[in-house]
Amino acid sequence: MLEKVDLSKSIGEKEYRKLTEEYSIRLGELQRKAWKMDIPIIVVFEGWHASGMAEIINRFLMPLNPMGFELYTAGKPCAQEEKKPLIWRFWTKIPKKGEIAIFDRSWYRRALLEHFSKNISEKDTNNCLNGLTYFEKQLADDNYLIIKFFLHISKERQQKRFEDIRNKGTPLFLVKEEEEDYIIEYDKFLPLIEKMLEKSDISHSPWNIIESDDLNFATVKVMASFIRAVEERIDREEENHEKAKTKATQTCTIPALNTSILEKIDLSKSLPKDEYEKEIKKYQKKLSKLQYQLFMQDRPLIIAFEGWDASGKGGGIRRLAQALNPRIYRVVPVGVPSDVELAHNYMWRFYNEIPEAGHIAIFDRSWYGRVLVERVENLCGDQEWKRAYREINEFEEILSNYGTIIIKFWVHIDKDEQLHRFRKREKTAHKKWKITDDDWKNRDKWDLYADAVNEMLQKTSTTYAPWTIVEGNDKKFARIKILRTVVETLEKELKVK
Amino acid sequence: MLEKVDLSKSIGEKEYRKLTEEYSIRLGELQRKAWKMDIPIIVVFEGWHASGMAEIINRFLMPLNPMGFELYTAGKPCAQEEKKPLIWRFWTKIPKKGEIAIFDRSWYRRALLEHFSKNISEKDTNNCLNGLTYFEKQLADDNYLIIKFFLHISKERQQKRFEDIRNKGTPLFLVKEEEEDYIIEYDKFLPLIEKMLEKSDISHSPWNIIESDDLNFATVKVMASFIRAVEERIDREEENHEKAKTKATQTCTIPALNTSILEKIDLSKSLPKDEYEKEIKKYQKKLSKLQYQLFMQDRPLIIAFEGWDASGKGGGIRRLAQALNPRIYRVVPVGVPSDVELAHNYMWRFYNEIPEAGHIAIFDRSWYGRVLVERVENLCGDQEWKRAYREINEFEEILSNYGTIIIKFWVHIDKDEQLHRFRKREKTAHKKWKITDDDWKNRDKWDLYADAVNEMLQKTSTTYAPWTIVEGNDKKFARIKILRTVVETLEKELKVK
Repeated sequence: MLEKVDLSKSIGEKEYRKLTEEYSIRLGELQRKAWKMDIPIIVVFEGWHASGMAEIINRFLMPLNPMGFELYTAGKPCAQEEKKPLIWRFWTKIPKKGEIAIFDRSWYRRALLEHFSKNISEKDTNNCLNGLTYFEKQLADDNYLIIKFFLHISKERQQKRFEDIRNKGTPLFLVKEEEEDYIIEYDKFLPLIEKMLEKSDISHSPWNIIESDDLNFATVKVMASFIRAVEERIDREEENHEKAKTKATQTCTIPALNTSILEKIDLSKSLPKDEYEKEIKKYQKKLSKLQYQLFMQDRPLIIAFEGWDASGKGGGIRRLAQALNPRIYRVVPVGVPSDVELAHNYMWRFYNEIPEAGHIAIFDRSWYGRVLVERVENLCGDQEWKRAYREINEFEEILSNYGTIIIKFWVHIDKDEQLHRFRKREKTAHKKWKITDDDWKNRDKWDLYADAVNEMLQKTSTTYAPWTIVEGNDKKFARIKILRTVVETLEKELKVK
Repeated sequence: MLEKVDLSKSIGEKEYRKLTEEYSIRLGELQRKAWKMDIPIIVVFEGWHASGMAEIINRFLMPLNPMGFELYTAGKPCAQEEKKPLIWRFWTKIPKKGEIAIFDRSWYRRALLEHFSKNISEKDTNNCLNGLTYFEKQLADDNYLIIKFFLHISKERQQKRFEDIRNKGTPLFLVKEEEEDYIIEYDKFLPLIEKMLEKSDISHSPWNIIESDDLNFATVKVMASFIRAVEERIDREEENHEKAKTKATQTCTIPALNTSILEKIDLSKSLPKDEYEKEIKKYQKKLSKLQYQLFMQDRPLIIAFEGWDASGKGGGIRRLAQALNPRIYRVVPVGVPSDVELAHNYMWRFYNEIPEAGHIAIFDRSWYGRVLVERVENLCGDQEWKRAYREINEFEEILSNYGTIIIKFWVHIDKDEQLHRFRKREKTAHKKWKITDDDWKNRDKWDLYADAVNEMLQKTSTTYAPWTIVEGNDKKFARIKILRTVVETLEKELKVK
């Protein structure tokens, strides 16, 4: 992609001043307009080392209101970042609706550099690149505007600039020692750069190649390209808005699905008390040991609980937690999203909660909310929950490729058992607070939820993240099944006898 | 404090079960009540290594709703933590109102360990301990309930438990290699523990010594002590609430202060255009070089801007930013606090924004909002802004002791100049958005603000964080004074010619 680029382009000082003055005013206006229209914008700067990136970024920032943007320098990963999948550090930094996140260096380059310099297998590298493609695609689907710049300079210009930097004695940023070879040697770095550009020149987020031998020309081209991209998006949204007005509102029709999965569950399973007490001791002891294996082997573990209200998720979680070291596990209750969470892409809050290597996150409800409560209660659009099956599978694939063990429980009870438990809760003083109007309302929509659960179980059971159905009418049976599943999965994954 | 503790205390299995069952229900109730009453709670667990802390904490967590608490393990500092003052990592983790933050290991121990094991001077250690005392005091003043537990065991019991751990092959958490000596050897660690307890046994947050040779006894005592502390606080609040009802509302009277500081400012100062252009080039070039010195010397720099609306803060900031590398500096605009910020102690949001070693944070408005807009507009209580002078000085002292260079600008204009600038903004299409009703409203309260500014300048000018008054009627003069002040301060602090 770089071979035919004409690097002789330049611009006179006078024209530079005139244009940047004009563009600066326009940039400020567009920032305010995008903010009003809730359009989130991601800007990525990538390029050769010593391409003048810091200077160009700084000039691009000057006309922007700092209240609405954040600059992230994707340099050497910190300890925490090294204990999470690569894409985590970018997912957690996506902007809120209406705001701008600017990335100094891109995820693709980071991935390739880390993978090449660490001699990581082709397969792992490709897994990682897939994760990055999912990232851009999911955000583009969610209306994020992604603008990518590649600052291109010639070999001669680079050598000249390296010399200047050395003479000035300023530090070389963002360079890890073991990667210096790649970065410093133009010809060695070129194939890596070409591979990166090729892999990531996606239709919804193509690269803008910026000829940067002349800094002024580069600045003007960056500003102009940004302005054009934002203007196009705003125009399109305004058009869509007009169209939507004239179109009749579509109602969200939920297809009645084959409910066979839930219907086939044998809820008569149960366990006598003495057996329960023997088993719980046995499995808790095993789990207690296994957690340290997990920790030593640096494997993250996710245990996600979904299930009907009052199906016993909390009790199941407690029986696991009792056996664990609080320095290793965390219970993450997933409730109504906060304002800040609503202002981000749906998956953002979950990326924020994934466990680091060697640690356990137990989710009390999870990212499946999108295809359960949000679907049934029309809290998101039709397209959004339909798209979510793929997004969720991609999310779990990324985690699994990183080495995360994923265990998902659907805790199942029938309608009669639920009624019985609701009534019991209402009668017990210290449990009364647990039962709310929402619980009764959800119960009225049992069949709609059953459809959603069936579709969910069908579409998101994967080899890397299978669902385990827990027969929950008998609490003792359910708790032991949960414990046993966790213990057996860990034994298998951690290769413990 | 530990010598006379009777470690033979224990409890039978049956009584343990009975009590924990009863306490668990009470704990859940109190958590919900504190949540409703917006009481933030901090629980600190400290103690000998192998005192059973993880187990005791886990048992204490079981009855709590994970939605309302967070456990933090204060172990080995990560890279980011090592680039901020020690107390930063605790300040940023304080709970929201109504929530509980539980700290596994305390700030005092961390401070002493790091300082002793790194052979840091007595003076630095004391500075650091002062910072920790400020932390607890400021939170206690702000209605935070702080409950501290020290888990005490005998030397014999510790040795027995170390043996068990070794036999089980489980990892020793929270131990940095270079600190192992202290932690493993009971007699060597004892004086450090005693010093910690003595230094931090503060009246508003005393230590509860927990006899932990028997884990069951320790668990019950922790639960009971927590219950008592929360109950006492709730009772007191309810009492206060009753009293407040019967008391007449006090109006917030603002004393008319001697306005001499502002009155003495010579606003006729100005700078001709040609001189301005020469000077700006000179100082921007110097600043550009100095930032790399700052970076190499690992010194953080804070530049805070306060000043009248339209006094030229933004223009001053831009002239600094133009000379800087965006990888080193960040502009932090301080506006109306978000809901999440309002739910924390006032200083929380600013601790979240302090620059790391070698970096620059430029604040466009700052923590002084409390003694300016919040005071004048009655956005906080009388006691709160009066207390804030001390809190702000303590905050800046902590940062300064860590090595932070602090530069504070009050950009001053007179009322006529402000009117002139407001009118000009209204007439310029791309500047119109900058002027809002709030600006006109603030202008009406000029005299009240002047009182507040005078008091602020007087009470928060310290040797480690002095105010620089910028004569702002002439923008060119003001910008050069800002640049020059920053350059000269850096030259002095960084010992550059």
